[in-house]
Amino acid sequence: MSSVSMNCEVLINADRLWQSLMDLAQIGATPGGGVARLALTDLDRQARELFTQWCQAAGCSVRTDAIGNLIARRPGRSDGPAVMMGSHIDSQPNGGKFDGAYGVMAGLEVLRALHDAGALTEKPIEVVAWTNEEGSRFSPSMMGSAVYAGLMPLEQTLSITDQDGITVEQALRAIGVTSTALETAYPDAYFEAHIEQGPVLEAEGKVIGVVTGTQGQCWYQIELDGRASHAGTTPMGLRADALVGAADIILKVQEFGRANAPGMGTVGRMVVSPNSPNVIPDHVYLTAEIRHPDDAVRRVMDTTLTEAIRDIADRQGLKVRVNKVLEQPAAPFDPACVAMVRDSAQRRNYSYRDIISGASHDAVAMSRIVPTTMVFVPCAGGISHNEKESATPDDLAAGCQVLCDVVIQRAGLIA
Amino acid sequence: MSSVSMNCEVLINADRLWQSLMDLAQIGATPGGGVARLALTDLDRQARELFTQWCQAAGCSVRTDAIGNLIARRPGRSDGPAVMMGSHIDSQPNGGKFDGAYGVMAGLEVLRALHDAGALTEKPIEVVAWTNEEGSRFSPSMMGSAVYAGLMPLEQTLSITDQDGITVEQALRAIGVTSTALETAYPDAYFEAHIEQGPVLEAEGKVIGVVTGTQGQCWYQIELDGRASHAGTTPMGLRADALVGAADIILKVQEFGRANAPGMGTVGRMVVSPNSPNVIPDHVYLTAEIRHPDDAVRRVMDTTLTEAIRDIADRQGLKVRVNKVLEQPAAPFDPACVAMVRDSAQRRNYSYRDIISGASHDAVAMSRIVPTTMVFVPCAGGISHNEKESATPDDLAAGCQVLCDVVIQRAGLIA
Repeated sequence: MSSVSMNCEVLINADRLWQSLMDLAQIGATPGGGVARLALTDLDRQARELFTQWCQAAGCSVRTDAIGNLIARRPGRSDGPAVMMGSHIDSQPNGGKFDGAYGVMAGLEVLRALHDAGALTEKPIEVVAWTNEEGSRFSPSMMGSAVYAGLMPLEQTLSITDQDGITVEQALRAIGVTSTALETAYPDAYFEAHIEQGPVLEAEGKVIGVVTGTQGQCWYQIELDGRASHAGTTPMGLRADALVGAADIILKVQEFGRANAPGMGTVGRMVVSPNSPNVIPDHVYLTAEIRHPDDAVRRVMDTTLTEAIRDIADRQGLKVRVNKVLEQPAAPFDPACVAMVRDSAQRRNYSYRDIISGASHDAVAMSRIVPTTMVFVPCAGGISHNEKESATPDDLAAGCQVLCDVVIQRAGLIA
Repeated sequence: MSSVSMNCEVLINADRLWQSLMDLAQIGATPGGGVARLALTDLDRQARELFTQWCQAAGCSVRTDAIGNLIARRPGRSDGPAVMMGSHIDSQPNGGKFDGAYGVMAGLEVLRALHDAGALTEKPIEVVAWTNEEGSRFSPSMMGSAVYAGLMPLEQTLSITDQDGITVEQALRAIGVTSTALETAYPDAYFEAHIEQGPVLEAEGKVIGVVTGTQGQCWYQIELDGRASHAGTTPMGLRADALVGAADIILKVQEFGRANAPGMGTVGRMVVSPNSPNVIPDHVYLTAEIRHPDDAVRRVMDTTLTEAIRDIADRQGLKVRVNKVLEQPAAPFDPACVAMVRDSAQRRNYSYRDIISGASHDAVAMSRIVPTTMVFVPCAGGISHNEKESATPDDLAAGCQVLCDVVIQRAGLIA
């Protein structure tokens, strides 16, 4: 347990962390208190410059790779693989101050705390700001980490265009990214601090979410066809009501979520036709999705739900098309890294709980190539992707201290 | 049973009935085989003129009242109240050849058959084409019969405008209606032949629907409020999903319809917000309606359904507003008139069944003031308010013969 005493020696500065978040949020600040800082825009460039200056002032070198990922490096005694922290500083069009920015500023605060302490670690330490996590300007989301991890080919990604026809490559050049090389050596491990973007920690009064992995998911598009007819002249027994079939499916999806906790099932979108009060609907389009951290369970949910949807359609006299538009396996995080987060929270007397990440993050791509985990802190009401996104300075500081502890433990504190 | 032999003496002409329907359908004919002949337009004027000429050629006088109802009268031996038939010759914007037109052309065919036979009846016989049954240009629907029956005040109705700001009064003058007086004496009875506009007769292979009355109904607008949140990060137990509540209500409305046959329950319109695949919906607007021929049963359905909706909202953690926007009692038709229709169908060896009118008709207003019933014939697939509206010459002829029988029986055939 020698690491306990060592970790306690480096403490992060809660006020400085908060101030850096508030300063960064000035770039692209919205009247409603949020942030609009889309990937590879001039606002993104300004944020990158500020982050670069801060990192250099803390004794780091800063580089970019060919997809624009911005990486600050603090040397270690060895020149081998670094312990990497990070997240993203691009935002949604109506984003908040904390989604992404927190993980980067928490990494920065760890660098600053190490710098202040004049600490030397065995392994180098890096903080990365991934390019285009949100996918609001260029689709898909989590672009930078996917290219970094070899999950998306560079050339193809550079040619993706925004709605004005500007390519990723043109946008990179426009903000001054000139590198054409990808990283060739992967880091030792990857840690990402993030607001939960869900209500669980707040509801249970916990400060630290020990993230054990992300869920797998299946997304469906479902179309039901029945027969439009007069609501006053068509006896119940002679109907083929597409909306009744859809209602049955919505409740079935919910039932599947409830019956397979911690899995989830959601219908979010639905379009009814002809959508007239006194006409029996003949067509409904709806989306459905199921999620579960255990792929074996999710696969059973997938099969069983698809069968249940067909049964419902048969019973209601409807034609049905079920189109599975996405199937993504779960990403369990590295058990050793997860245990380090749990241990830090326990030692610091932060209330904590294991949690599955419901949303996807850059950490998912990283988990495919190196030992990875995340640290969650609560956000008010679970609200995110919203100007009202909010988190407390104390919770943010606690998450940052846990991040600091596990990074130092992983990197090895020499002096 | 002296009436049996008498009735058998006057037979309608099936071919002539069909031809008059086809001729009338030329006025406002649509490329898709339907009719677009909105109330009080020049096409309506042309149809009224054709009907007037046909009636005059069959020995009738024709008059209009102050709301434009067009009434043909065949004298009887007495000058007392007439036995009245009728329906309407205005159509929906995408209407068919039979909705309304059939009831007026069937009445005309009865007048022609009597004229051909040189028959004399004790009571006069009238055929009315009611103004603006469809309500497509001027709202509400069934305007002419409502004013005739004293259910809507004349002055107020004349000042209703279409979407171009033209009043009913201006539109009446424009097509040459100059009368300013309403009828002061009501008829002896009212009979309306109509296509079913539902699938029951066709499904059971019946030719004649013996209409025993119309249903009562309640219409509702329902709004549900929950909490929008991320479909991947919000555990099932922490959700307030407005769409799940709406699905529960849709199935409950259907269950109420099924459990209270021949009652009905329908949700036709639904708007989901934010309607995004991966966001739990926080708001749903939906309409619901219940119908039942027995007002006592409908009142219990109304109360119980409203309670059930509130229970569902409570259980799902949703706020709910239920706004009852219409409550209309049932209109049972005159048992003696209904029995005459049933007897005629039986004597003629037409297959028949008692049926409730699901749609509303001019006969509903008439049933409030004089003995009334309707005669239904099948329409293909139950389809109406549609260019594809279709009925067979044989079925139309059968309904017209029944109409002829009951009108002669009610009017009393002298010679």
